Amino acid sequence: MRIFCPATVANVNCGFDSLGFALEGIGDEMVFRKTTDKGVTITKITGDDLPMEAHNNVAGVAGNAMLEDIQADFGVAIEIYKKIRCGSGIGSSSASAAGAVYGINQLLDEPLSNLELTRYAMKGEALASGNEHADNVAPCIYGGTTLVTGYSPLKIIALPPMETVYVGILHPHITIKTKEAREILPKTVPLADAIKQSQHLAGFVASLYEWDKELFTESIQDVLVEPHRKQLIPHFDEIRTISKENQCIAFGISGSGPSMFCLAFAKAHIDSYLAKSVALYQENGLQVDSYSSRISGTGCHII
Amino acid sequence: MRIFCPATVANVNCGFDSLGFALEGIGDEMVFRKTTDKGVTITKITGDDLPMEAHNNVAGVAGNAMLEDIQADFGVAIEIYKKIRCGSGIGSSSASAAGAVYGINQLLDEPLSNLELTRYAMKGEALASGNEHADNVAPCIYGGTTLVTGYSPLKIIALPPMETVYVGILHPHITIKTKEAREILPKTVPLADAIKQSQHLAGFVASLYEWDKELFTESIQDVLVEPHRKQLIPHFDEIRTISKENQCIAFGISGSGPSMFCLAFAKAHIDSYLAKSVALYQENGLQVDSYSSRISGTGCHII
Repeated sequence: MRIFCPATVANVNCGFDSLGFALEGIGDEMVFRKTTDKGVTITKITGDDLPMEAHNNVAGVAGNAMLEDIQADFGVAIEIYKKIRCGSGIGSSSASAAGAVYGINQLLDEPLSNLELTRYAMKGEALASGNEHADNVAPCIYGGTTLVTGYSPLKIIALPPMETVYVGILHPHITIKTKEAREILPKTVPLADAIKQSQHLAGFVASLYEWDKELFTESIQDVLVEPHRKQLIPHFDEIRTISKENQCIAFGISGSGPSMFCLAFAKAHIDSYLAKSVALYQENGLQVDSYSSRISGTGCHII
Repeated sequence: MRIFCPATVANVNCGFDSLGFALEGIGDEMVFRKTTDKGVTITKITGDDLPMEAHNNVAGVAGNAMLEDIQADFGVAIEIYKKIRCGSGIGSSSASAAGAVYGINQLLDEPLSNLELTRYAMKGEALASGNEHADNVAPCIYGGTTLVTGYSPLKIIALPPMETVYVGILHPHITIKTKEAREILPKTVPLADAIKQSQHLAGFVASLYEWDKELFTESIQDVLVEPHRKQLIPHFDEIRTISKENQCIAFGISGSGPSMFCLAFAKAHIDSYLAKSVALYQENGLQVDSYSSRISGTGCHII
């Protein structure tokens, strides 16, 4: 059985640790085979230099957490075809963790819910990031746009689709260590900014239910995190200016970077933004990948 | 022309400065007469000892701001029948400010939108509180539950109705100065709490669109403001315990207090909660008013 596991954008501006969406056409593939030996065996990895030992691999950790918990009477051999670059900030480790539990779920008679799958995938994600976060794994499993409304208990809302929205992803080839991205965040923030951020996230949610484009554009902003993290990404403010000059409606850091996402109501706006941004990086001697995509309505799925 | 202006609950837990709702059956009445003299004249106030001079009265300030801006060729004489106690925390000044602009709007050929009315009412509200806030005046004008998603520009969302929700209001007769309630708030809050509050407000909004009772109950919590302000209200934690013992689903400070609101899915739960809470205050020698209400679908309206 071969599945597709989409790349995802998390920490979407107003939704730090909360809001994420799945991308169409950018993602890994994984192949699953039932084995009589229990537990996960990683039999092949292409596209990246990742550990083959299950306990050191996010897919292995997530898969084994699930297999042990459900007391499965079988094991799973997994091949991983990485297409999403590690450390790019578009959910590379989440795709492997989510893909592992999604794939195993397909082999079960009584499949688990998306919420249960997310819980197991978070255990794999924790191996990569040191923390059990759901804002990448949730959209990778649910598809579309997801909102984490709480962690104890874990609660995830599948939000209404943003059907007419196009996404541009820009991945400058620099390394941002997750630890550095965390340490740069302040421990406390002004109360007024906290209120503003909460209004933005709530406004964003309402804008999807109402499909209010004006509210959508006004709400998808980040006053808490981006001002601190943007210094880690060269030419960030210039790229933002290019996004505005090309009628894009939102721009921000994907995950903890270095990738940036950009949203627009027309594909032409994204294509023009990407071309100009890539040119800017190249002029400055920086390698960069760029992708144009839709938001995917489906998460992991069999191909 | 006689109108009813509902009492309102603002600062609803997760929605500090953002979320408010209108109450049914608790509110002021106001009477409007067109005059040839321009501007607002307050001709009568019953129920409270409030300034009769328009520039010192929230209804006068809001009404005059609107009349001047629209260059009205008439003036208005207003009688105010206060039923909402000043300083109770259920939108007494907002009812007068919102009522004034709503009433004047009814006398116009081309009435203004609710959003425009809210802008003028905020100018009256500023006289009372020192700040232009919209979280009381918006539900007083729109009715139902409203979310302020931003102040520049001002944006207000009328949220889906909470039809099966009952409200209990408890007003212990103590005085909390707005200044004191503001000064007790910290200038900065932990980033983790800011994220949690934003998840709660966004979750609350989603719960209304989905009518997800579980999410509703989990989301309507306040980690930012209540921990600091509750010390201003005697027996706050005991009253909260009573609310939980009576199956109520939410409890918090109304506005900046001293009133507390409580929500439940059954009227019997509210009635039982109110009876026990009133008894607790009386045992402790404190006078208290209590009201049982629904959330009003309409804001100010002609009677």
